[in-house]
Amino acid sequence: MTEKMEQLYLEDLSVGQRFTSGTYVIEAARVREFAAEFDPQPFHLDETAAQASIFKGLAASGWHTAAIAMRLLVTSGFPLANGIIGLGGEISWPRPTRPGDSLHVDSEVIDITPSRSKPNQAIVSVRSTMLNQNSEPVYVLSAKLLVFKRP
Amino acid sequence: MTEKMEQLYLEDLSVGQRFTSGTYVIEAARVREFAAEFDPQPFHLDETAAQASIFKGLAASGWHTAAIAMRLLVTSGFPLANGIIGLGGEISWPRPTRPGDSLHVDSEVIDITPSRSKPNQAIVSVRSTMLNQNSEPVYVLSAKLLVFKRP
Repeated sequence: MTEKMEQLYLEDLSVGQRFTSGTYVIEAARVREFAAEFDPQPFHLDETAAQASIFKGLAASGWHTAAIAMRLLVTSGFPLANGIIGLGGEISWPRPTRPGDSLHVDSEVIDITPSRSKPNQAIVSVRSTMLNQNSEPVYVLSAKLLVFKRP
Repeated sequence: MTEKMEQLYLEDLSVGQRFTSGTYVIEAARVREFAAEFDPQPFHLDETAAQASIFKGLAASGWHTAAIAMRLLVTSGFPLANGIIGLGGEISWPRPTRPGDSLHVDSEVIDITPSRSKPNQAIVSVRSTMLNQNSEPVYVLSAKLLVFKRP
């Protein structure tokens, strides 16, 4: 993550463009805290219970995983000048995120659909894959973003 | 939310079944804290900046909204005996979630597809809509869940 990351507008984007974020290490204590607040299920809270579960070990809440991907996109992974404004999308978690995992997000611009009624904006489809330190995907987000031209 | 909520297994589910969660009030301070950690964009952090943005006022991160929906599902909205284990799904945010909003989640079972290889489990598609105090949808999640039969 650089201090002076170039800020992109719609004119700067093209299909096939790729971006890579910095990294984020997820801590065990934060896994449990996030789960206690938002996803209080045994396999996100307790190592012993998690060992006996389908996850076979403590796993981060999928929503914690999703939130970390957003942090990486916002801070270094996709430098949109007007911010990352998502309308919706598709998500999947191909495998668990584990405490201690070192995560980063690779993104690719998949489609750009200009607005018919508002010539200064478009819907940009971006596929972002968050990978762990073994280059295994833990989260895939295909998002529709609202992106603006230079003012 | 009742103390003794019935815990459901695959045999207890059927297409068209509906569930309603308890409520959760989202606080302004928590909106800013969540955004500072996971989605540090001006329209989630600062009222003045948010007024000047497309959101026209402070809005919760979409991932904070998603996390609150999960909390409501886990604690009262969809009482699965083996827990809510999501493989993925589709998400959308039809309008912003605002500080002070009182939220609840209505869910409906949309589809049940038994596993071919594992007779004790199925993929259950559930559409969950989180509504604010004016019955306006702020978040829609169509999730594919892994659900098990009674042991």
